[in-house]
Amino acid sequence: MNPVQDTLAEADIAGNPLDQVVQHLRRGETLQAQTVINLLHTSEMASLLESLPRELRKQTWDLILPGNEGEVLAYLGEEARSTIIDEMAHHEVVAAAETMHDTDLAVVIDELSETLSEAVLQSLDADRRLRLEATKAYAEDSVGRWMSSDVISVRQDVTLQVVLRYLRRLKPLPTHTDALMVIDDNGQYLGKLSMSEVVTEAPETLVGELMKPMADCVRVDANDHDVAVLFERRDLISAAVIGERGELLGRITVDDAMDIIRGEADKAVLARAGLHQEEDLFAPVVPSAKRRALWLGINLATVFLAAWVIGRFEEALDKIVALAVLMPVVASMGGIAGSQTLTLTIRGLALGQVSRTNLRWLANKELAVGLLNGVAWAVVVAIVTYAWFGDTGIALIIAAAMILNLIAAAFSGVIIPVILDRFGYDPALSGAVVLTTVTDIVGFLSFLGLATLFLL
Amino acid sequence: MNPVQDTLAEADIAGNPLDQVVQHLRRGETLQAQTVINLLHTSEMASLLESLPRELRKQTWDLILPGNEGEVLAYLGEEARSTIIDEMAHHEVVAAAETMHDTDLAVVIDELSETLSEAVLQSLDADRRLRLEATKAYAEDSVGRWMSSDVISVRQDVTLQVVLRYLRRLKPLPTHTDALMVIDDNGQYLGKLSMSEVVTEAPETLVGELMKPMADCVRVDANDHDVAVLFERRDLISAAVIGERGELLGRITVDDAMDIIRGEADKAVLARAGLHQEEDLFAPVVPSAKRRALWLGINLATVFLAAWVIGRFEEALDKIVALAVLMPVVASMGGIAGSQTLTLTIRGLALGQVSRTNLRWLANKELAVGLLNGVAWAVVVAIVTYAWFGDTGIALIIAAAMILNLIAAAFSGVIIPVILDRFGYDPALSGAVVLTTVTDIVGFLSFLGLATLFLL
Repeated sequence: MNPVQDTLAEADIAGNPLDQVVQHLRRGETLQAQTVINLLHTSEMASLLESLPRELRKQTWDLILPGNEGEVLAYLGEEARSTIIDEMAHHEVVAAAETMHDTDLAVVIDELSETLSEAVLQSLDADRRLRLEATKAYAEDSVGRWMSSDVISVRQDVTLQVVLRYLRRLKPLPTHTDALMVIDDNGQYLGKLSMSEVVTEAPETLVGELMKPMADCVRVDANDHDVAVLFERRDLISAAVIGERGELLGRITVDDAMDIIRGEADKAVLARAGLHQEEDLFAPVVPSAKRRALWLGINLATVFLAAWVIGRFEEALDKIVALAVLMPVVASMGGIAGSQTLTLTIRGLALGQVSRTNLRWLANKELAVGLLNGVAWAVVVAIVTYAWFGDTGIALIIAAAMILNLIAAAFSGVIIPVILDRFGYDPALSGAVVLTTVTDIVGFLSFLGLATLFLL
Repeated sequence: MNPVQDTLAEADIAGNPLDQVVQHLRRGETLQAQTVINLLHTSEMASLLESLPRELRKQTWDLILPGNEGEVLAYLGEEARSTIIDEMAHHEVVAAAETMHDTDLAVVIDELSETLSEAVLQSLDADRRLRLEATKAYAEDSVGRWMSSDVISVRQDVTLQVVLRYLRRLKPLPTHTDALMVIDDNGQYLGKLSMSEVVTEAPETLVGELMKPMADCVRVDANDHDVAVLFERRDLISAAVIGERGELLGRITVDDAMDIIRGEADKAVLARAGLHQEEDLFAPVVPSAKRRALWLGINLATVFLAAWVIGRFEEALDKIVALAVLMPVVASMGGIAGSQTLTLTIRGLALGQVSRTNLRWLANKELAVGLLNGVAWAVVVAIVTYAWFGDTGIALIIAAAMILNLIAAAFSGVIIPVILDRFGYDPALSGAVVLTTVTDIVGFLSFLGLATLFLL
């Protein structure tokens, strides 16, 4: 490499950490790569590892300081995590597990081999093992899985001065301690005392006078989605988690709520393409291909169904070849219009804005929109068709089919997600497949059917 | 209504607030409806208003206490907000605006008519008007638009005791005050002092000894997406916002970051169907239809392009009708496989995980996955085709076209979002349209083209 090229490459390196690390590793500059990596937050290290193909991933992992390994593992997606754990010595995994939060460890330990998870369990002290068991006992999508036990509780009959003395003994306080939880002698949750008030109110004031009774608490078995929405709507930093009898069990904080929201958004986007949330950008080819094959298979079945419908009209297609040329237009426009209604309805359901009482209004509005756009685009399509094939019959029939399909699309776009939701399926996952199957079939059926009736 | 029906309806009412309010309004039970509404958080009131058709929306709005009107208006989507403001008297709008946060008001005031926005501006005191002008001067997607000025700053040469005395005078503290910002005499940002330390450390300690120098600060012109990612990755509650010369301007808090993340997720989902983020679930039919028409028009153009490709093969279609029946299979499978790769790539780009250095690896992996699934499903499709039409030639040709289209789909799925991104377009918006255009055309072209070459 001549000096000029070398300088260019040097200038190049001032990119993002990913590009920097890769360049340094390529040049064998391990120390420089290590410096770049260890300036990152542990969550950013995890993101960087996920962006590397398998070979470089291992090499980069070895540059991370052992003290950070637990947190980085916790931030990784399941699949990327397993590729790294497979390469680690047992004692390294045990050491990393010891630095993880309870809630993260509860997730990770289930992914380990039996001997490895046994080794990790053995290394924990009795207290932590108990907490871990408790966490794992809660349902996967419940608040219990996210709850942390590092909560500061005080009694209502003490003064702020006493509280302040107590806090000084406890230091450092858990992160995100914006409030203290007030409990009675039996551990029942009574209310919340904000740290701001602890600091600003007169020291002789009683906790009981200042606390907000029963404020911001959620049941341990509450659904994590509902709790994330609560945090978002009420701008909470932390909320008390209580058990069946109202006893304080722990707390959940805003960073958990953010993780839940991000995770849901991520899942919805991936699921629409039939991808799994833990999908690794650099998963090996064969397992990747296998996982995606299922979705392709489902879609193949639906498109063969549509092909079968087309096959019923072989006679018409045989006589009028223009039908074959134009039939994708009707089907495709139905799919697009339907997906607009579908998207609105799914979003309304997720936000709790679509319910029994307003469903009919929504359906009526969408049908009217479908009819209006159906008529408008039917005119355009009829004109283009006439200009292309010079056949009034085909132009009129494609216009009629278009209107029919856009009305069917609007109706399906409202009704399919509502039905899927009622039967406990997530409409964000399978709604689009069902919808395009309907709009394809209605599209081909109406266009070819009308042509058979009127043109043969 | 007989008593039995009445009791049933009564039991029914124990649903969500939306159903409850609608039922009460239908029965003319205004007071009960008002009770249900005013127990909600202002953000939940906004969500409820958005779930109602126009007539009921106005009626429900009148039940909201005037003190809450400003916040509810701020939480509403743009379109829903304008329907309500149109019905309000000028003095009501002015009163509501006075209770809004600066950042919300900066958004809302731009939506008002000239006379109305003038009236609101007149009602503000000089100080607030200045802050409002400053907020509006920042770029739309910059931190300056979200920044709030309610930040507590202290100097580094004072003791915690002095800080505590100061805080007592300030009370109540701004919400989400997890840290104080340390500045020098010229207002330069120096670092962050956590409230936990103010409470737990010895009163005679100096601020300068405890502060984290230059921790968690962002530039006022930073992109709001990048800042939201920073909050998420680093689990921040608040961050200092600094100007060009390092001076402290304000702060941004975790609830803003959550709003940004939620807003982006929402926008991405809606944009994929060509919908606008502020889309009102109960917008009137004509404007709704108009807005959606553009997207339908774009798609009509792409599908006519595909139809034109099909039209080039009229001769083949005329001779072998099975081609018309089967051609959607090839196009559709390409679209599905391509959207899997596209989704992964778009997500990688958004998370900063796809970059110059790993693009080729990603493309190679996706091409290999495409080839593998192409071959696997080509076999299935060939068998089904042979069983259906009993024609070896067509079976072999559909298999070959399938493999070609799945490879083209994998390549396009990586390259289209990268190119769109490089030219400054958001691949989440237009990626899918471009991709399906490619897979449709390659699908029809390869299948009908090969058939023309080998079967005619």
